[in-house]
Amino acid sequence: MRAAVMYGAGDVRITDRPDPKIHRPTDAVVRTVLSCVCGSDLWPYKSMPATDTGRPMGHEFLGVVEETGADVAGVRAGDLVLAPFTYCDNTCDYCARGLHFSCRHGGRYGFDGVDGGQGEAVRVPQADGTLVKLPVDAGSALLPSLLTLSDVMGTGHHGAVTAGVGPGDSVLVIGDGAVGLCAVIAARRLGAERVVLMGRHTTRTDLGRDFGATDVVAERGEEGAARVRDLTGGDGVEKVVEAVGTRQTLDTALEAVSDGGTISRLGVPQYEQGPVGPSMILRNITLTGGASPARAYIEELMPDILAGTITPGRVFDRSFTLDQAPEAYQAMADRRVLKALITL
Amino acid sequence: MRAAVMYGAGDVRITDRPDPKIHRPTDAVVRTVLSCVCGSDLWPYKSMPATDTGRPMGHEFLGVVEETGADVAGVRAGDLVLAPFTYCDNTCDYCARGLHFSCRHGGRYGFDGVDGGQGEAVRVPQADGTLVKLPVDAGSALLPSLLTLSDVMGTGHHGAVTAGVGPGDSVLVIGDGAVGLCAVIAARRLGAERVVLMGRHTTRTDLGRDFGATDVVAERGEEGAARVRDLTGGDGVEKVVEAVGTRQTLDTALEAVSDGGTISRLGVPQYEQGPVGPSMILRNITLTGGASPARAYIEELMPDILAGTITPGRVFDRSFTLDQAPEAYQAMADRRVLKALITL
Repeated sequence: MRAAVMYGAGDVRITDRPDPKIHRPTDAVVRTVLSCVCGSDLWPYKSMPATDTGRPMGHEFLGVVEETGADVAGVRAGDLVLAPFTYCDNTCDYCARGLHFSCRHGGRYGFDGVDGGQGEAVRVPQADGTLVKLPVDAGSALLPSLLTLSDVMGTGHHGAVTAGVGPGDSVLVIGDGAVGLCAVIAARRLGAERVVLMGRHTTRTDLGRDFGATDVVAERGEEGAARVRDLTGGDGVEKVVEAVGTRQTLDTALEAVSDGGTISRLGVPQYEQGPVGPSMILRNITLTGGASPARAYIEELMPDILAGTITPGRVFDRSFTLDQAPEAYQAMADRRVLKALITL
Repeated sequence: MRAAVMYGAGDVRITDRPDPKIHRPTDAVVRTVLSCVCGSDLWPYKSMPATDTGRPMGHEFLGVVEETGADVAGVRAGDLVLAPFTYCDNTCDYCARGLHFSCRHGGRYGFDGVDGGQGEAVRVPQADGTLVKLPVDAGSALLPSLLTLSDVMGTGHHGAVTAGVGPGDSVLVIGDGAVGLCAVIAARRLGAERVVLMGRHTTRTDLGRDFGATDVVAERGEEGAARVRDLTGGDGVEKVVEAVGTRQTLDTALEAVSDGGTISRLGVPQYEQGPVGPSMILRNITLTGGASPARAYIEELMPDILAGTITPGRVFDRSFTLDQAPEAYQAMADRRVLKALITL
């Protein structure tokens, strides 16, 4: 089969890889229908050392079950299914606590002999725990929005949930990437009255306004934090979703959050050390967030997509074929594309 | 009046200061009955640059109201009252959110012309918001335990509350100082089944066992964290109260906490930067805690002291007169005394 494989920074190729087969009785093989490129795929695209073996890419996909192992009972050949961005048993104590990223039998696509999601097919371990049958057919116009439940919408939702967003809240979302925009949807969905979106790409922040952002702050750093404080009565906001992952955006979050507030981080930090000294304690600031248990949120969020109340699929602003995947990476890295859909 | 004043590291003197008077109609003057030395008083005792003016010390005290300003309605001359470690209006939006340390009309004893608590009398601003009338007389044997509600017991409670401790939990408390020991009381009081106390001073950890610690770990650093993981099934504990404030104890907390766990910090950090990089995100670790809203917890905790169900006053292992306050500081700095009571 053909699949996108990264061989180093800036070097994504479509290569032939072995057709996936059932290895374990808990596996399923899924023929990919839709995949996409994640903002987190751009970090290795910028920095991965060159390698001969390459790394199969992609962790967001939906497709049709082709074959199942003997122990798989929840899905069968022909089912249209969605896969969250890590596989998981969905039954261990970590999964029970909503920590699917830490699942005792879980793992990541593209590692440990498991295919990536940007390819024609994927062997999915722990198929019963991982895959969710979709109540639409493969021709549904809702597929892009449903695909966001694999990662980006579940991740935005995780930010709003861990920040403690509830009815009437004011929330700051830092970052106008696809995760930030989904965090806007999630914050509004959870009842936030005011959602300030920090971003400077007008087409993205316009989409953020469509998603429910009430204010947009284009300034960055101290200037941006001051603007947020001005907008929210001077004290800053109680709930911040930090959807970028740089030290600058963490600093901005700390400057914009009010005493007693919560900062939820979603982006994988591009730093090791951060300012967690006396001021954070004296101001009672909480730092939370993390890798979303996307699997756990699918059942909660899917009805809103089916009903049309949320339309996170709008983050996909351009569609590519699998052969065009290298171009999709470059377009996202150049910020010409917000989030690239890959159709198979 | 006489009061303890710090003039630099290791230099606490009993000096004459002006008798407190009512400055504002919201003030009260309280004649001190009991005060004490806080672990946080030891940081300036170790590092404060020498000064001619000096800093009045102490922020934990109870005493008898001597005089009240025209606007004070809640307490009157002759009342035995307890003061939390910062004064506050107890009505502003921050106080309403349980953030008394950030009170819009609040402040700290020993700063901005306000007396310290280690002296014969204190002018207490915002008396109605700050002072709580005690339902015992000045001869009560419960006074030391009631005094802990001024700071140390409320602070330990804040750690357990912000760590999210509830029935059946396993909790790690790092530090066998008075705050750590009060966190043990608080964790058990909130229903924790297992409380692992990390400390190496046997007399203190023995008191911790009396307070409800189920396990004591004397090892520090990586070795200590490994021991905690061994004791708790290998994955670490979900709730950690970090009651020391060094980088080493933060590292220990991060090593001992399980994926998805919460670390609540109570000690003022003796560091500015901490490890909040990718591992914290991928493991979904939450960092919380802060300065306790002691005022907010008094009503909740006092009944347990009056009923004798908790006895936090046992952290006071030696009593000093005000004239002996310099000696009390040195005894605590030398770890000869756990927490020094000052009687007036």
